[in-house]
Amino acid sequence: MQAPEFWVESWLNSSKPLTIKAMAGKVMVIYAFQMLCPACVQYSLPQAKRLQDKFAQSDTVQIMGLHSVFEHHAAQNPATLQAFAYENKLSFPIAIDTHQNSNGELDKIPQTMQRYRLQGTPSLLVIDAQSQLQIHHFGHLDDLTLGLELMSIIKGSGDS
Amino acid sequence: MQAPEFWVESWLNSSKPLTIKAMAGKVMVIYAFQMLCPACVQYSLPQAKRLQDKFAQSDTVQIMGLHSVFEHHAAQNPATLQAFAYENKLSFPIAIDTHQNSNGELDKIPQTMQRYRLQGTPSLLVIDAQSQLQIHHFGHLDDLTLGLELMSIIKGSGDS
Amino acid sequence: MQAPEFWVESWLNSSKPLTIKAMAGKVMVIYAFQMLCPACVQYSLPQAKRLQDKFAQSDTVQIMGLHSVFEHHAAQNPATLQAFAYENKLSFPIAIDTHQNSNGELDKIPQTMQRYRLQGTPSLLVIDAQSQLQIHHFGHLDDLTLGLELMSIIKGSGDS
Amino acid sequence: MQAPEFWVESWLNSSKPLTIKAMAGKVMVIYAFQMLCPACVQYSLPQAKRLQDKFAQSDTVQIMGLHSVFEHHAAQNPATLQAFAYENKLSFPIAIDTHQNSNGELDKIPQTMQRYRLQGTPSLLVIDAQSQLQIHHFGHLDDLTLGLELMSIIKGSGDS
Repeated sequence: MQAPEFWVESWLNSSKPLTIKAMAGKVMVIYAFQMLCPACVQYSLPQAKRLQDKFAQSDTVQIMGLHSVFEHHAAQNPATLQAFAYENKLSFPIAIDTHQNSNGELDKIPQTMQRYRLQGTPSLLVIDAQSQLQIHHFGHLDDLTLGLELMSIIKGSGDS
Repeated sequence: MQAPEFWVESWLNSSKPLTIKAMAGKVMVIYAFQMLCPACVQYSLPQAKRLQDKFAQSDTVQIMGLHSVFEHHAAQNPATLQAFAYENKLSFPIAIDTHQNSNGELDKIPQTMQRYRLQGTPSLLVIDAQSQLQIHHFGHLDDLTLGLELMSIIKGSGDS
Repeated sequence: MQAPEFWVESWLNSSKPLTIKAMAGKVMVIYAFQMLCPACVQYSLPQAKRLQDKFAQSDTVQIMGLHSVFEHHAAQNPATLQAFAYENKLSFPIAIDTHQNSNGELDKIPQTMQRYRLQGTPSLLVIDAQSQLQIHHFGHLDDLTLGLELMSIIKGSGDS
Repeated sequence: MQAPEFWVESWLNSSKPLTIKAMAGKVMVIYAFQMLCPACVQYSLPQAKRLQDKFAQSDTVQIMGLHSVFEHHAAQNPATLQAFAYENKLSFPIAIDTHQNSNGELDKIPQTMQRYRLQGTPSLLVIDAQSQLQIHHFGHLDDLTLGLELMSIIKGSGDS
C-alpha cells in the first residue's frame, strides 16, 4: 500500500516538513504516540531513541515521531509536547498531527491518524524506499523483532 | 525536625486537604515530582503506586504526591497534571505545590518545595507519627531500602 | 512455630556451622535454592546479595543460603556449588542440606527441606530473634514486601 | 575469514553433529558460553532462546550453543550441562567444545575456542551462508543491534 501523505500542524526538531514524497528513497520509521500514553513513554519512545542513536547520520533511514492526540486534547498541546520532548531528550523530528480536516473543521481524531487507520498509541509504521507501507503495528514491537524486520526492509525485500 | 506545613494550590484525588497537623499519628510518605521529569515517571511514581497498593486501606500510613513545578510552568499546569494522573492511574492524593508566596507574588520555586529545601525531583519525604521529618532524599530510593527504612519508622524507632 | 534445627552436610563461606541455637538473638534470613533452578538464579540470589550488602556487618541480622537439592543430585554436588558460588560472588554462608536421614540412609528429599516442609525452590525463610519461624514463603518475594516484613520482624513485632 | 571447523566432544539436543561444511547455505548463530558464567546466564542464553523461537523452523538460519569450558572444568562437565540445559529449556543444539588436541593431550583451553580465538564467554559468532565468519563479538550484543546485523547477513550483504 502506498503510504498516505502526512497532514501535519507543525514540526518539532526539524526546520522543514518531512513528506512522504520528499523521503522517497529512504526507509522511514514512524512512532505514533501521545505524550500522556504510559506505554509510549515506557516502551516505544525509548526504542525510538535507540534507533535514532543508530541512524541519526544515516542517508537511508529516517526516524520520526508522530504526535497523534485523540484524547486529553488540551493537555497534550504543542507547547506541552515541546517541554516533554526536551525533558525526554527526543532529538528526531516530530510531526504534530493536525485535527483540522479538509472542510476546515476540527475532528477529534487527527487527520494522519485517520488516513493511516491507526487504532491507538503507540503504533509503529515503517515505510520502504518505494514509499510503500510495510509495517503497520498497533502496540510495541520488541527490539529483536524490529531489528530483523527493519533490516529486511532496508535490504529491499520488504517481505519479511 | 518538625515537618513544615504544606502550602498547596489545590488537590487531586482528595476531597479535602491533607495537612501535617491533621495527619499527626500517621506516617506520611510524600513523593515530590514533576510530570515531565523522566526519573519521576520511570522510577518514583511506579514505586508510589506499589506502596499505595499496600497501604491504601491503612490507618497508619498515608501515601501522597506533591507536584512541585520549578520548570516548564505553563506545560505542567493543573489541568495537564490531572490528565497525567488519570492516564497513569495515580490514585493517591496529590498536592499541587503553590507558587504564590506570603506577599501574594508568584515565585518560580513553589512554596512547599522551598520550605522543605527540596533540591529537585524526584524527592522522597517520610514524616513519622510525631510529625518529624525522618527521610529527606533527593533522587530515587530502591524498594528494598525504602521497605526497610519505612517499616523502621512505622515501628516507631525512626532511627534506622 | 519454633524453627527446626538445620541438618547440614557441609558449609560454604563459613568456618563453622550456623545453628538455630547459636543464632538465637539474631534474625535469620534463609534463601533455600538449587544452583540449577532458573528462578533462584534470576530473582532470589540477586536479592540475597542485595540483603547481604546491607547486613554483612550487622549483629542482629544473618543472611544465609540453604542448598536443598531434590533433583539433578549428581549435577548439583558440593564441588559444583562451590564453583557456582564463586562465579556468582555469593559471600554469605551457604548450608548444604544433607540427604542422609537418621537411619543413615540417603533420601531423595534432603533433611532440612523435609523438616521445614519446603515445597520447592526458591523458598524464603525468616526466623526471628526468639527462633520462631515468621516467614515461610515458596517462590520469590518482591523487594518492597520483603523490606517491610523483614524490618517488622527485626523491630520485634513479627505480626506484619 | 573462512569459519574453522568445530572440534566437538559431543552434542546435546542434536542426533548428529552440525559441521561448518554441512551447514553451508545456512546462516549460523553461535552462542559460546559456560554454564557458570553469570553474564551468559543472564543475557546471552535468554537472547539465544528468543532467536530460537523465531528461527526454530527456518531453513536458512541455525541457532546453536557452544559450551567452551576454560575454568571450573570438573564442575562444568557434560552431565551437569545436560541438567542445566534441561532446567533452562535450551532446545537448540549445543556443541561441547573438546579439550583434546591433535596430539591427544588435554588442553585447558578447548579446541574450538582456540581456533576461533575467543577471548572468553559469552561470545557471539555469526557465520554467513558462504561459511564466512561475519560477527566475532566478545560480550553481549543488545537485541536491536543483533536483529539489524543478523538480518543484514541473512539478506546477503554481510557488510553491515
